Amino acid sequence: MKFELLNSLIEKFVKFPGVGRKTAERYAFHVLDMKSNEVDDLVDSMKYLKERVSNCKQCNNLTEDNLCDICKNGSRDSSLLCVVEEPKDLMSIEKAGCFKGKYFVLLGALSPLDGVGIEDIKLNELFCYVKSNFAIKEIIISTDADAEGESTAHYIMKLLKPLGRKVSRIGMGLPVGADLEFIDRNTLQEAFKGRREIL
Amino acid sequence: MKFELLNSLIEKFVKFPGVGRKTAERYAFHVLDMKSNEVDDLVDSMKYLKERVSNCKQCNNLTEDNLCDICKNGSRDSSLLCVVEEPKDLMSIEKAGCFKGKYFVLLGALSPLDGVGIEDIKLNELFCYVKSNFAIKEIIISTDADAEGESTAHYIMKLLKPLGRKVSRIGMGLPVGADLEFIDRNTLQEAFKGRREIL
Repeated sequence: MKFELLNSLIEKFVKFPGVGRKTAERYAFHVLDMKSNEVDDLVDSMKYLKERVSNCKQCNNLTEDNLCDICKNGSRDSSLLCVVEEPKDLMSIEKAGCFKGKYFVLLGALSPLDGVGIEDIKLNELFCYVKSNFAIKEIIISTDADAEGESTAHYIMKLLKPLGRKVSRIGMGLPVGADLEFIDRNTLQEAFKGRREIL
Repeated sequence: MKFELLNSLIEKFVKFPGVGRKTAERYAFHVLDMKSNEVDDLVDSMKYLKERVSNCKQCNNLTEDNLCDICKNGSRDSSLLCVVEEPKDLMSIEKAGCFKGKYFVLLGALSPLDGVGIEDIKLNELFCYVKSNFAIKEIIISTDADAEGESTAHYIMKLLKPLGRKVSRIGMGLPVGADLEFIDRNTLQEAFKGRREIL
């Protein structure tokens, strides 16, 4: 029995993050069940996204122009620069609505085991950006709280120190709603280090 | 912040089976991270599948021609007809390699609650096919073992009885490897009904 076309699509879905063979098969059958115009819309969405979206020339956020909407927005606080690993991290912070400064996206994190070194992410660009931009008073390093994010944060701290700006790390501790009983020991250590006086 | 292109693709992935918003976001970012030629391949795969694959004129299996490879295959046993709900059910049976007869795909199962009635699936076509095809000696109803599959099986049994052929239902009982302790009561009832004498 020949199902090359079906199998070819299944092979492609298997490469999606977290997708196994069974799920890829479901997706391929779903595509078969979709209406023709729905498949056309999906296909166009993918092509347009890939063709038109690139990284902001200034901060590496996603954009359809040279500069992203945040870099272009004059009403954001230029004295605060939040450094994140990926555009999706930036989007999470924007959704939370708790930060009104500007961003810099590294497009990765240092990971020697995966062969990602200093030259592979936008660390030099970050240094140049901060150095030439005197409006920046504080850099808030908001890389992930995992090993790669921590070592990247550590590197950035050393990198930016000579520039004489305030450098901070996003707060760590219990996530809101957490049951203390189930919090791992590293998080508890960070939570104690990051304790705040109740006034 | 404008992310229409990204959000537009996310909305389309959300319609995939079992995909929530977080997963759809991961998929959309994955498409962004893919190489351009990989996106082109994925897009082409979807379009070709949708354009070229249709249902076999005889049995409703998936095919790129008028007739599917199983219907065209003269070496399969024409005296046995296995009736399944969907092409993917047929593919599961083919993978198991335990059946060498022919198939008929209903393209659905009776489900009054979802508005799927007798006219909505290929029941009349099944009747005509069996009636006009004197080679068929036994029809093995292999619809799912859920409520819809059972009621569809029951309907087919009554439908085909007047034609004087042998009609059977695929065996039910413990799945291989099952722990009896965890088998539900309905399956146990079926397993006792379907007990076989050890010779």
